[in-house]
Amino acid sequence: MIIDCHGHYTTAPEGLWAWRKLQLAGQKQSSSKPGISDQEIRDSLEGAQLRLQRERGSDLTFFSPRAGSMEHHVGDAAVSQAWSRECNELIHRVCSLYPANFAAVCQLPQSPGVPPANCIPELERCVKELGFIGCNLNPDPSGGWWKEKPLTDRWWYPLYEKMVELDVPAMVHVSSSCNPAFHFTGAHYINADTTAFMQLIQGDLFKDFPTLKFVIPHGGGAVPYHWGRYRGLAQDMKKPLLKDHLLKNVYFDTCVYHKPGIELLLKVIPADNILFASEMVGAVRGIDPETGQYYDDTRRYIDAIDWVSPADKKKIYEDNVRRVYPRFKG
Amino acid sequence: MIIDCHGHYTTAPEGLWAWRKLQLAGQKQSSSKPGISDQEIRDSLEGAQLRLQRERGSDLTFFSPRAGSMEHHVGDAAVSQAWSRECNELIHRVCSLYPANFAAVCQLPQSPGVPPANCIPELERCVKELGFIGCNLNPDPSGGWWKEKPLTDRWWYPLYEKMVELDVPAMVHVSSSCNPAFHFTGAHYINADTTAFMQLIQGDLFKDFPTLKFVIPHGGGAVPYHWGRYRGLAQDMKKPLLKDHLLKNVYFDTCVYHKPGIELLLKVIPADNILFASEMVGAVRGIDPETGQYYDDTRRYIDAIDWVSPADKKKIYEDNVRRVYPRFKG
Repeated sequence: MIIDCHGHYTTAPEGLWAWRKLQLAGQKQSSSKPGISDQEIRDSLEGAQLRLQRERGSDLTFFSPRAGSMEHHVGDAAVSQAWSRECNELIHRVCSLYPANFAAVCQLPQSPGVPPANCIPELERCVKELGFIGCNLNPDPSGGWWKEKPLTDRWWYPLYEKMVELDVPAMVHVSSSCNPAFHFTGAHYINADTTAFMQLIQGDLFKDFPTLKFVIPHGGGAVPYHWGRYRGLAQDMKKPLLKDHLLKNVYFDTCVYHKPGIELLLKVIPADNILFASEMVGAVRGIDPETGQYYDDTRRYIDAIDWVSPADKKKIYEDNVRRVYPRFKG
Repeated sequence: MIIDCHGHYTTAPEGLWAWRKLQLAGQKQSSSKPGISDQEIRDSLEGAQLRLQRERGSDLTFFSPRAGSMEHHVGDAAVSQAWSRECNELIHRVCSLYPANFAAVCQLPQSPGVPPANCIPELERCVKELGFIGCNLNPDPSGGWWKEKPLTDRWWYPLYEKMVELDVPAMVHVSSSCNPAFHFTGAHYINADTTAFMQLIQGDLFKDFPTLKFVIPHGGGAVPYHWGRYRGLAQDMKKPLLKDHLLKNVYFDTCVYHKPGIELLLKVIPADNILFASEMVGAVRGIDPETGQYYDDTRRYIDAIDWVSPADKKKIYEDNVRRVYPRFKG
């Protein structure tokens, strides 16, 4: 079985965006629902994620609301709460319509400067009532201004306690950037991955939470490319070896869109810490003229590597994902 | 000849830091000089950069003030001006004492929100009067808050015009971070490299400045690892191929501290766009227990690669550096 642990509902029907527009105009009560039919949901997926699953031979995608639209920086905590709820409801509908193709990962109703404990009710609702298996955690709910405390700060601990209790991991994933310095998918996403990993090096978070699990997406940002730098920085800081300090709790996905990058990832990061992912339909939608294939068809790069054993590939495609997301039983 | 294009005076004598302390306490007139003897300069280098040059077999280092101490965010433009001048004077003394070992690259007196045109007098002084061959340009003088306009904005144009006129390139290099989210050498530096490259993809800067040259340090941040992503994003934005859009003007150094990273860099980036560098004595000072060698002994990784031709290695070690820094005649 091939499980893609990183997919967002980038093709959500227009009714969702219309609802959002009215919400931000202050014309939506929290009790109203986006007007979206099951057929619209099917239409939004059949020609996109479902077609690509079939074409590329992946079986199931862990599916969460569009990352760039989490927009934790827009409106206040109540706005984020209502918006997250609607986005998660829609993901639940997708997964109910296509239980063999998608498993649900939730957006958290974070808001800049608001204690992350405020996300606990929505996380519990999603996991306990709706069967969600993970969440996306935004280390920068300000949207590119990086005003929140590092992920190792006790500020985040109540949420981590709930994640541990529920046995759900978080993918560390920012949303859009309102800082003109940072292009969202080209700079902000990758920077956030790198930043989160370095925060984890600096701290000792997993001493306090030995079973907490984070997935760093986009192949870990810059981290595997600079693995020597990170090993060396940890060493200069008198931290344990990274394999002991972080790699029992931190995982990298395979959203790296060319073969040399994937080769590097598989060369330097232990196979136990790599989870297959493509983030399709996502940041990069074109066909690579050098290969004639989609940039984000990451399975193709992995399959083409002959020095990774079938056992390790099975870990990457399936076993690790099941280990990191124990609530997934598909 | 082996030229290391990226070195900072991280071992500068105590007199410099004492001067800085008094400057920030408001007790230094702009006419005073740090009390540093030639012997102190020699002592600060003989056991460090000069010893490592000999041990590692590099001939000459492009040498600039300590990046983390540029601190453009500290004090106002006048403070930055006076501090930059003293730092650059000291680099000039180093290069005068050891003309066979060092060539001078200057710190610019940037200040947050102050038009970069204010750097022109110090750049001209360094280049025309003191023989400097390049400069370090900080895309985020706020020190981790990223409040400046992207590098493609006309805000920066007067400085670029002067760089073009003087025929000096800039290494795009941030200073320390006062944002607790960003560790300076582990996150801020690498993020800045990635961010700068993405800003250049988004813009069309080199249409306006066809001879302007930037060096992106630290192996280009995350860029080579995500080369497929960047090619794909440029394609989705209807930009030219990166080789045409940026690679006549943008270069990457080799400050990547493990062999798999260097291999990736040399695999995906054309040899014409790679400049040898180690940034020693710099961010990572330890010995890698996996190799028994210094992490930042980057020459060792390059030398060990057998699929790069001697001609390409000569480009990386010497020829490209001379092409990008035409004022260097050593």
